[in-house]
Amino acid sequence: MIKYRKEVENLRPYIPGKSIDEVKQTYGLTHIVKLASNENPLGCSELAKQSIIESLKEPSYYPDGNCTALREKLANKYNLNPNQFIFGAGSDEIINMIAKTYVAKDDEVITGDITFPQYKAGTLQMGGKIIEVPLKAHTFDLDGILKRITEQTRVIFIANPNNPTGTMVNAAKQLDFLNQVPGDILVVMDEAYVEYIRDSNFPQTISLLHQYPNLMVLRTFSKMYGLASMRIGFGIGHEDVIEKINRIRGPFNVTTAAQVAAVAALDDEAFVQRTYEVNETSKAYTYSRCHELNLSYIETYGNFVMIDFGRPSPEMFEALQSQGYIVRPGHNLGMPGYQRVTLGTEEQMVAFFDVVETILNNG
Amino acid sequence: MIKYRKEVENLRPYIPGKSIDEVKQTYGLTHIVKLASNENPLGCSELAKQSIIESLKEPSYYPDGNCTALREKLANKYNLNPNQFIFGAGSDEIINMIAKTYVAKDDEVITGDITFPQYKAGTLQMGGKIIEVPLKAHTFDLDGILKRITEQTRVIFIANPNNPTGTMVNAAKQLDFLNQVPGDILVVMDEAYVEYIRDSNFPQTISLLHQYPNLMVLRTFSKMYGLASMRIGFGIGHEDVIEKINRIRGPFNVTTAAQVAAVAALDDEAFVQRTYEVNETSKAYTYSRCHELNLSYIETYGNFVMIDFGRPSPEMFEALQSQGYIVRPGHNLGMPGYQRVTLGTEEQMVAFFDVVETILNNG
Repeated sequence: MIKYRKEVENLRPYIPGKSIDEVKQTYGLTHIVKLASNENPLGCSELAKQSIIESLKEPSYYPDGNCTALREKLANKYNLNPNQFIFGAGSDEIINMIAKTYVAKDDEVITGDITFPQYKAGTLQMGGKIIEVPLKAHTFDLDGILKRITEQTRVIFIANPNNPTGTMVNAAKQLDFLNQVPGDILVVMDEAYVEYIRDSNFPQTISLLHQYPNLMVLRTFSKMYGLASMRIGFGIGHEDVIEKINRIRGPFNVTTAAQVAAVAALDDEAFVQRTYEVNETSKAYTYSRCHELNLSYIETYGNFVMIDFGRPSPEMFEALQSQGYIVRPGHNLGMPGYQRVTLGTEEQMVAFFDVVETILNNG
Repeated sequence: MIKYRKEVENLRPYIPGKSIDEVKQTYGLTHIVKLASNENPLGCSELAKQSIIESLKEPSYYPDGNCTALREKLANKYNLNPNQFIFGAGSDEIINMIAKTYVAKDDEVITGDITFPQYKAGTLQMGGKIIEVPLKAHTFDLDGILKRITEQTRVIFIANPNNPTGTMVNAAKQLDFLNQVPGDILVVMDEAYVEYIRDSNFPQTISLLHQYPNLMVLRTFSKMYGLASMRIGFGIGHEDVIEKINRIRGPFNVTTAAQVAAVAALDDEAFVQRTYEVNETSKAYTYSRCHELNLSYIETYGNFVMIDFGRPSPEMFEALQSQGYIVRPGHNLGMPGYQRVTLGTEEQMVAFFDVVETILNNG
């Protein structure tokens, strides 16, 4: 028996849901609609695909570890210093890198109790202590978080909008919060779904970076840009904060295909607009069907909706899956009774709610 | 100032060499030959490229975190249990995962003094102590390693063949070593270049796995299979060892493109054979030119050769780079005077040695 780190003892690997192929086999289905992982139902930009195909003509060198082209493009876009960016194989990797850089044994990390699970996983892997402050009205409770700050607090992770609840922390509240957090605590605002939001109350967090050297913003190409399969996300922060994280980054952590696809995706504003519109339409449709079926739901700022189907979530999940609809069951997210439903195309949502209606009517 | 982990203090980010574009700009060149990172000069299999293009037709879902198809293919190929495999974004990530699983603060990790730098980086990141046993005749000194084992030793990393020296530990020596290492120490044999070797003295390490539950083998698709840009490698070991590492693995750490490319690459035996032959031809040619130019070199079992150019390596590196040939300078690898030269195509090696000859004659 090889002795492993004590921290590993209580960790459990992430257990993904059944794959599309497994669901097909299990239920003898030919057509599956996956509304489980908040992917873009339109796929990704054709420009991104073409850039990948183009990149395959080059010899398969190691990737540019610096992500130079993407870094420069984003630095220009946001009018920031290129040294303020760090890239990772999805936000997942950036969260892990933040923990590996800033969370030592017994250090404390604060987040919500019902939120993206990688904040906790990354913290526990490093032997840190995770403080999970209960959401209030399904929303990050910033006052509650402030009360839990101690001398040992190193990092605060806030998903905005929150996954899985879809709620947002508005600009005024975020500013008030940032003004109260001690400057030696890293505040990480994970804005994975930001491109879906055009609400003027949503914070312009990137514009605050120069005022708050302890502020970091996470962004991803997995959602609006539809590059989940490619694994690419980035963090923006003060260059001293980024420089430390960069010390533990693997030399070639983002693939060439992901880099060229991300650069191309940023240029395809029409795709972004189309995705936004599809999401708005499907959201409105989803709300209307929920009203009609008397199902309560949490208003969302993302591309997913938490819906309370009024019955045990394993059971409803299974019923949906047997009909070819894969969603994320709420009992795995800390919200039994709910399912997190990714907003697909309107056509997919129509068919989904027809299935929901049949299931609910039949018992 | 955000307080970071003590271990981060002395870490430095990996500094890659100049990119091809930078070299072009710096020296006003249009054609560059990169012989620096042991990539496959033939690129990768066309089947792999086609499988990536095919995969782009699917919606960009998150990757299969389990790498199911590749896992099953490899389990069949090696007649092992699928649970004995772990996949990573290159061997780099697997080395880091091994350290994160098995190396606690002040634990000891033993490796060579001149070898792949990620063993040291991964260890130091976790607060472990790295014991670098000097190579003997440019080869891993297994007896020397045995002498450095203590109660605190957790992992031994051995690159076979070694990078950058290209030397191998033969089957008899490896077996003798495995018989002497205590069973609670993880022995990691990194066989990144194994596909280049058809020498009957090279160990069949995978066939030893059932006898040594503390043995782990690393393989990669970055070298012979030419998928460096895609980032995919794997580890094989006892399922208990793998299960622990899997607890700290990110949920979606290997891209879809990498997975489908790897599956396809395994089927293209003709590409592997062609790469092998090109490497053998270029190796023989390289040796002959070295003899002719009176340059000493280390006989290699990989796709790269350490050549002693008899002059300070920064100077020779610079002279080569200014002529459009990028190699890896020995002073960065702990072997001043040498350059590590990746074996390109024979045509590339002919042109390379013509440039070498000119430089040596003129200086």
